[in-house]
Amino acid sequence: MSKKEEDVMELARRRGFIWAAFEIYGGASGFFDYGPLGTALKKKIETLWREFYTLGEGFYEIETTTLGIRPIFEASGHLECFMDKMVECKSCRGLFRADHVGERCPDCGGELSGPQDFNLMFKTRIGAVSDDKARSEAFLRPETAQGMFVNFPRLLRFHRNKLPFGIIQVGRAYRNEISPRQGIIRLREFTLAEAEVFVLPHEKSKHPRFHEVESVTMRLKPNYMDEELETTVKDAVERKIITHEYLGYHMARVQQFLEKIGIPLAKLRFRQHERDEMAHYAEDCWDAEFLSERFGWVEIVGVADRGDYDLRAHSLKAKADMSIPVTASKSEKMEEESRSLSVFPHVIEPSYGIDRIIYALLESSFHKEEVRGEVRRVLRLKTHVAPVEVAVLPLLNREPLVNKAREVFQMLRRHRIFAEFDASGSIGRRYRRQDEIGTPFCITIDYETLENDTVTIRDRDSMKQVRVSISELPAKLSCVCESIFA
Amino acid sequence: MSKKEEDVMELARRRGFIWAAFEIYGGASGFFDYGPLGTALKKKIETLWREFYTLGEGFYEIETTTLGIRPIFEASGHLECFMDKMVECKSCRGLFRADHVGERCPDCGGELSGPQDFNLMFKTRIGAVSDDKARSEAFLRPETAQGMFVNFPRLLRFHRNKLPFGIIQVGRAYRNEISPRQGIIRLREFTLAEAEVFVLPHEKSKHPRFHEVESVTMRLKPNYMDEELETTVKDAVERKIITHEYLGYHMARVQQFLEKIGIPLAKLRFRQHERDEMAHYAEDCWDAEFLSERFGWVEIVGVADRGDYDLRAHSLKAKADMSIPVTASKSEKMEEESRSLSVFPHVIEPSYGIDRIIYALLESSFHKEEVRGEVRRVLRLKTHVAPVEVAVLPLLNREPLVNKAREVFQMLRRHRIFAEFDASGSIGRRYRRQDEIGTPFCITIDYETLENDTVTIRDRDSMKQVRVSISELPAKLSCVCESIFA
Repeated sequence: MSKKEEDVMELARRRGFIWAAFEIYGGASGFFDYGPLGTALKKKIETLWREFYTLGEGFYEIETTTLGIRPIFEASGHLECFMDKMVECKSCRGLFRADHVGERCPDCGGELSGPQDFNLMFKTRIGAVSDDKARSEAFLRPETAQGMFVNFPRLLRFHRNKLPFGIIQVGRAYRNEISPRQGIIRLREFTLAEAEVFVLPHEKSKHPRFHEVESVTMRLKPNYMDEELETTVKDAVERKIITHEYLGYHMARVQQFLEKIGIPLAKLRFRQHERDEMAHYAEDCWDAEFLSERFGWVEIVGVADRGDYDLRAHSLKAKADMSIPVTASKSEKMEEESRSLSVFPHVIEPSYGIDRIIYALLESSFHKEEVRGEVRRVLRLKTHVAPVEVAVLPLLNREPLVNKAREVFQMLRRHRIFAEFDASGSIGRRYRRQDEIGTPFCITIDYETLENDTVTIRDRDSMKQVRVSISELPAKLSCVCESIFA
Repeated sequence: MSKKEEDVMELARRRGFIWAAFEIYGGASGFFDYGPLGTALKKKIETLWREFYTLGEGFYEIETTTLGIRPIFEASGHLECFMDKMVECKSCRGLFRADHVGERCPDCGGELSGPQDFNLMFKTRIGAVSDDKARSEAFLRPETAQGMFVNFPRLLRFHRNKLPFGIIQVGRAYRNEISPRQGIIRLREFTLAEAEVFVLPHEKSKHPRFHEVESVTMRLKPNYMDEELETTVKDAVERKIITHEYLGYHMARVQQFLEKIGIPLAKLRFRQHERDEMAHYAEDCWDAEFLSERFGWVEIVGVADRGDYDLRAHSLKAKADMSIPVTASKSEKMEEESRSLSVFPHVIEPSYGIDRIIYALLESSFHKEEVRGEVRRVLRLKTHVAPVEVAVLPLLNREPLVNKAREVFQMLRRHRIFAEFDASGSIGRRYRRQDEIGTPFCITIDYETLENDTVTIRDRDSMKQVRVSISELPAKLSCVCESIFA
């Protein structure tokens, strides 16, 4: 681990962003908790994400159970295909992913057993003893998506039988990794934010809002090329690098969202999965990857064209036909293979790994610099994701400064601005504390405040200060609450 | 089930509030999904709850894993005490909670087996085969609270070793019920919103903000009385009906929150648990109960004084001392039993069952009335929890009305107002559709709109209409986004 990455993780732990879970009991690899500041950051990202797709795209959100019964995952293919090959060291009994080791145990050099299949879903049992496997065997979902697919008939009715429509879900998903060793990058319990866009196959080639994103420039790594290329979405679709407008539109929107929450575009690319790398359900898939200084290129969002895999599979398994009757006029536009009276909608799926996005934001916003001979650690988070929106600081820890500062603090909270109050230590030290957690603004109450009801606002990045009257504060700080969906 | 309750559940299902989970596979009792409107309602309640405790109380939120390893629940007592007695029918093999049946099987009249203990936690295994039970046996959490307790040492440092402080968490919890039969009231997977307030035992008698709630009137059912009484919190604490100000303060705040989201006070009471009814960790507990027309009195929030049970238990088990050194001046005020140099903080816990609160809101806001000879179903939800904030309706489904209506719709979404657009069916029918899902306002675009850029706003409850100019709309509708934390 390089020095910088040690610094980021030390800060994340010390200041309450990310903690190893149940550490007082020795912890368990692949499980992390979010502390107070990490949770505030996470909630802001989730809220912005939700607005981006509900207000921005007109999608509706649903919330389904994290536990699912056996038939769901028989149909989805996860029972059969959601596997890693596992090897065991015959000497130390260590377990490893077969693709992570060579011929010998990386821990003790012992001989390894031949690879065995290991299903990555956590399994449990509903109710007391029962012989009814289909009803009593349950699994923690490996993705939130299946909850949207099995509700498709109702969701279609909710949309008055009109396609296309999009459904989103934010929630926990689980993956029983054999031996995760990459901290927050490889979790056994994690948060996904997923959108499933249901669209008729012959309508994938034209997205009604494609013109809004067509000039977005992206860095692409197609699976048939050794090189990356940088081009507009429009060009990529025209040259068939991206197979259709629906996929192109949603890749561009993913990039816009990531950019708006603060992922630097210079560290972002879209890499197309190799044919043999794709999930069992995917027709095509592009990963938005973040270039981490610690882990190299890391997938943070996957944008998949799942085709009709899931709706077809559930229709068969549940004997509930989810195909859509297509009228003659529509079917004229249809492609060869779907020229029938009834087709399954296809699914375009942008799937965001929220924990990895949080890591990417922490790593890329962390800076260490020298200011007047002292080290300054600063998280240059965008104002609308910063956990603490503003800090209120009396210049000195004495009355009547403290009392006045408390009044300002209360007033900001009444305006729904998440403020922190801090009176302990020198003012310079308190600025550093706030810089370190990414607080965009510090308000200082000094003796001039008592005379004319003005305060200073200090900007985190420039460290410049301006003087404003207290009554102007809520409006001045409103950028903090600015929407990004538009 | 009475007619009204049938109507409520029919509406909840038909309009996309609440759906039985994985129903295409026959479902499983105790599992429900939230559809688009149910999720919007739930998210609003969760956001308001979060603001109520973060901005309103200064508490920080954390997010811990839903899976926990075995030692956590050995220490917390859940492995030993989180049990129901189960009986099995010797004829039909049906399983029942012992306290729900008599001597014979309620389904077939067969003989029942003697009661057996059944642990209510869902169990799973982390990683591949392993002999290390403490590391590999995991359980889905029965409450979010333990995640806050095992992080107490870090949370204390985050608060610079100062008490009291409060921590909140919103998330899934699980309870492997033997055979749940009460719909959304008795779930196996549910959402809790919990606050854990850590306070030194000798400081429970005085809450610094007690004066703000002291005149709140509550309906109380203490465990030593057969009758309910109605009195102020101040009076209840003075008469020792409620044992201390901390508990009284948080009970009053619970009532304020429930009232503000729309639970009618006439259907709310606080019932103190009987001594033999309390959870194994509780010193005292009051349930906020909602009087359901369908289920009778139903717990929707529990306010417990957990004493030092949890921190003491984890300190012992993890050999991590979580007691607090108390200075001489502080210990003078201490009660007899804690006169030592080091004490464990006590925990006051308001624990909200979000799913039951949603049921209570749906049931109590549902009304069926006759309007000009037609049946009108209306959900009188408070504006700040209504899933759809405003509907935009062209008077007729023809141009240029539709186009103009779309412009208004887009403008509202840009102002972060969650609007729905509906052009199909008669205007009366569209009003009814919106009434039924609780949309507080309908905006109608008519021919006058085309002349002078004014629209009508129709109020759901009074059905009165006023005419306003389009430019005024965002401000007029701002009450929808009004905060309730203050």
